[in-house]
Amino acid sequence: MRRSTKRWYNGIAPGGAAYTDNGMEENTTNAKATAVDSVGLVTPHDHTFADPPDALTLDSGKLLGPITVRYETYGTLDAKRSNAILIFHALSGSHHAAGYHSLDDKRPGWWDDMIGPGKGFDTDRFYVICTNFIGGCNGSTGPSSPRADGTRYGLDFPLITIGDMVEAQRRVIDHLGIETLYCAAGGSMGGMQALEWAIRYPDRVRSAVVLASTATVTAQGIAFHAVGRNAIMSDPAWNRGDYYGGGPPAHGLAIARMIGHITYLSEMSLGRRFGRTLQDRAAFTYEMSGEFQVESYLQHLGSRFVESFDANSYLYITKAMDYYDLSESYGSLQDALARTRAKYLIASFTSDWLYPSSQSKEIVSALMQVGRDVSYVELESVYGHDAFLLESDRLTGIVRSFLNNVDSGRTGR
Amino acid sequence: MRRSTKRWYNGIAPGGAAYTDNGMEENTTNAKATAVDSVGLVTPHDHTFADPPDALTLDSGKLLGPITVRYETYGTLDAKRSNAILIFHALSGSHHAAGYHSLDDKRPGWWDDMIGPGKGFDTDRFYVICTNFIGGCNGSTGPSSPRADGTRYGLDFPLITIGDMVEAQRRVIDHLGIETLYCAAGGSMGGMQALEWAIRYPDRVRSAVVLASTATVTAQGIAFHAVGRNAIMSDPAWNRGDYYGGGPPAHGLAIARMIGHITYLSEMSLGRRFGRTLQDRAAFTYEMSGEFQVESYLQHLGSRFVESFDANSYLYITKAMDYYDLSESYGSLQDALARTRAKYLIASFTSDWLYPSSQSKEIVSALMQVGRDVSYVELESVYGHDAFLLESDRLTGIVRSFLNNVDSGRTGR
Repeated sequence: MRRSTKRWYNGIAPGGAAYTDNGMEENTTNAKATAVDSVGLVTPHDHTFADPPDALTLDSGKLLGPITVRYETYGTLDAKRSNAILIFHALSGSHHAAGYHSLDDKRPGWWDDMIGPGKGFDTDRFYVICTNFIGGCNGSTGPSSPRADGTRYGLDFPLITIGDMVEAQRRVIDHLGIETLYCAAGGSMGGMQALEWAIRYPDRVRSAVVLASTATVTAQGIAFHAVGRNAIMSDPAWNRGDYYGGGPPAHGLAIARMIGHITYLSEMSLGRRFGRTLQDRAAFTYEMSGEFQVESYLQHLGSRFVESFDANSYLYITKAMDYYDLSESYGSLQDALARTRAKYLIASFTSDWLYPSSQSKEIVSALMQVGRDVSYVELESVYGHDAFLLESDRLTGIVRSFLNNVDSGRTGR
Repeated sequence: MRRSTKRWYNGIAPGGAAYTDNGMEENTTNAKATAVDSVGLVTPHDHTFADPPDALTLDSGKLLGPITVRYETYGTLDAKRSNAILIFHALSGSHHAAGYHSLDDKRPGWWDDMIGPGKGFDTDRFYVICTNFIGGCNGSTGPSSPRADGTRYGLDFPLITIGDMVEAQRRVIDHLGIETLYCAAGGSMGGMQALEWAIRYPDRVRSAVVLASTATVTAQGIAFHAVGRNAIMSDPAWNRGDYYGGGPPAHGLAIARMIGHITYLSEMSLGRRFGRTLQDRAAFTYEMSGEFQVESYLQHLGSRFVESFDANSYLYITKAMDYYDLSESYGSLQDALARTRAKYLIASFTSDWLYPSSQSKEIVSALMQVGRDVSYVELESVYGHDAFLLESDRLTGIVRSFLNNVDSGRTGR
């Protein structure tokens, strides 16, 4: 707790860059690719499949192909190909979950705190894979990808679902010659993918780690997403998704990011970090520009996000989340989870109001009703939804212990 | 509870139009200006003052004048001028708190459920006044008002505070020949004005009703406001506030309203009202346009708001809220409230996450520490922040009982 608090307060960007790109400054601490607990230098790989006429049929019925999935791996696949852990990122993350791409990188992958030698997902023991989901903008096929004729998809890209992301990931796992995942693990939207994997491929997922996640995106969640999408689509630069030749809808995407970011934090964490502290002034100046640090912080986050993220991807990914509801897809939450054979670790955080503990407890309750082996922990944290990225110290022991026990006890098989 | 629930579900706009402009249809029920519990037809009045060189000095040090305040009154001022209750509206409300402007009006004033013969604020007994605060766009001087030279203020309008609103209201109360208010009452931002009145004019406020309010706008509150302002100011039509000759920044204001509206509701109320119900379709169509009812609802609210509200006013009013912090203004919350001599009724609602019960309890605790007479009630409600407008049935008895007892017991005098 102390370590997390310290990191939070001194404005150093934590490893969790996916959601918590909350540093006003770059991380210039001596995080090194050569540290003993780092996976070191890593290189992304691409796997391309679904070339027409073998395009992937999406949940919408539309076809998509060819599809490229970019991914990284850390650690070594054992001879039995039995030690693979598939990690899923959330909205703005990527396949770059751990390590560094070059010695000059100031920041490691987004979950470096949890992935590495001796860490929660211990690369001395496990072969850890992280893929960039389709629809995104970090190397896997998405709306900003070029088509065969050289033009970008834009809004011609088909709508996708969490299930479609899983199908694309499955091709990578096949490609790597892995029949069974030791674990499927992720937080937030990553947890949705982990659950969907366990449901779609019950014989291929031995355990699932689902952090700060949910079995459904509620009306409130859809509402926040919808406002963000409205902000992007009402930006004149959006041009119905056809902006790749010109400037992106930067204002709209920044607004969407700001809205999202508020939902990732708690009132308490914003209060502790910023409170009503003024930005570069001793007293109110009574100007229309922002007076408070929290305003500058949000604008900074919004501007930075625009540099690295595609606005159309933001639309497609939030839509994919909106479509996600295990009860709707499989008849009931129990019916959905009864298909699975995995052991589960479910964790939630007390101050997470985006996917509150009550939503994790619904999953736990349904798993118990269908006789699955589930461990649940609710962690006290002030960090809101972002806690799944910031509370690595406390998650490390919990995840290690869970992964050690996947082979013991009842498994639901 | 039943009545409120019914009103909520059948899509009839409740009286609380200020925040809860949540009807997809106009209220076509037989609410009549002639009903025995209605104040009937009402006419707004204007009071103009602060003509230069006697302009009002604002908290910022800037001068504003001339100032017009539009207001309405209901009931009769008694011979001793001792039965006046001043009502304050919230962000998007107006002076039109009760009754009808014409027999054709489909909807009454925003707090008609609470103001009228035999109602919570009983106009058979009290003389009820509601003013449109300065900075707004419903008749009182604000950024859309014309100046002497005929041009609109736009961004030349000075930044204002809750205290400045109170000073303008005070001139109206003087004008009406009222020395002492029997009660100062409001919810949300209206509660802030009630507290500020009790602090600035302790001998002129005998009691205060403060619903779903707070003594400070927190970092999270500022953050939501800041994103809304960013949405307006990044709309090209905003044109640095100078849009009165052309089209308003409709997209930006709609986005700001949508964001605000989500904060006025609870996850549960959105879930109960909309859940994941689709809009005009039986199954997902996998189109980028909204699929869910909650999306259509938000867009509808955003569009409607743009027709009746000035974007610059939205900027100025949210800024006024951001500046509001009684501890900062008066040294500490105790110091602020020790200046007051009123009796208090403080009420909060369990599902209000914008100004949660904890923030009302801080006010109650500080009032008790400085020996003031305070009644506090936390009401169970699913309606979130909007509960202060929607739970009129339950508030009626509480407010009536409080107002009956203003003359009894200790008063802090």
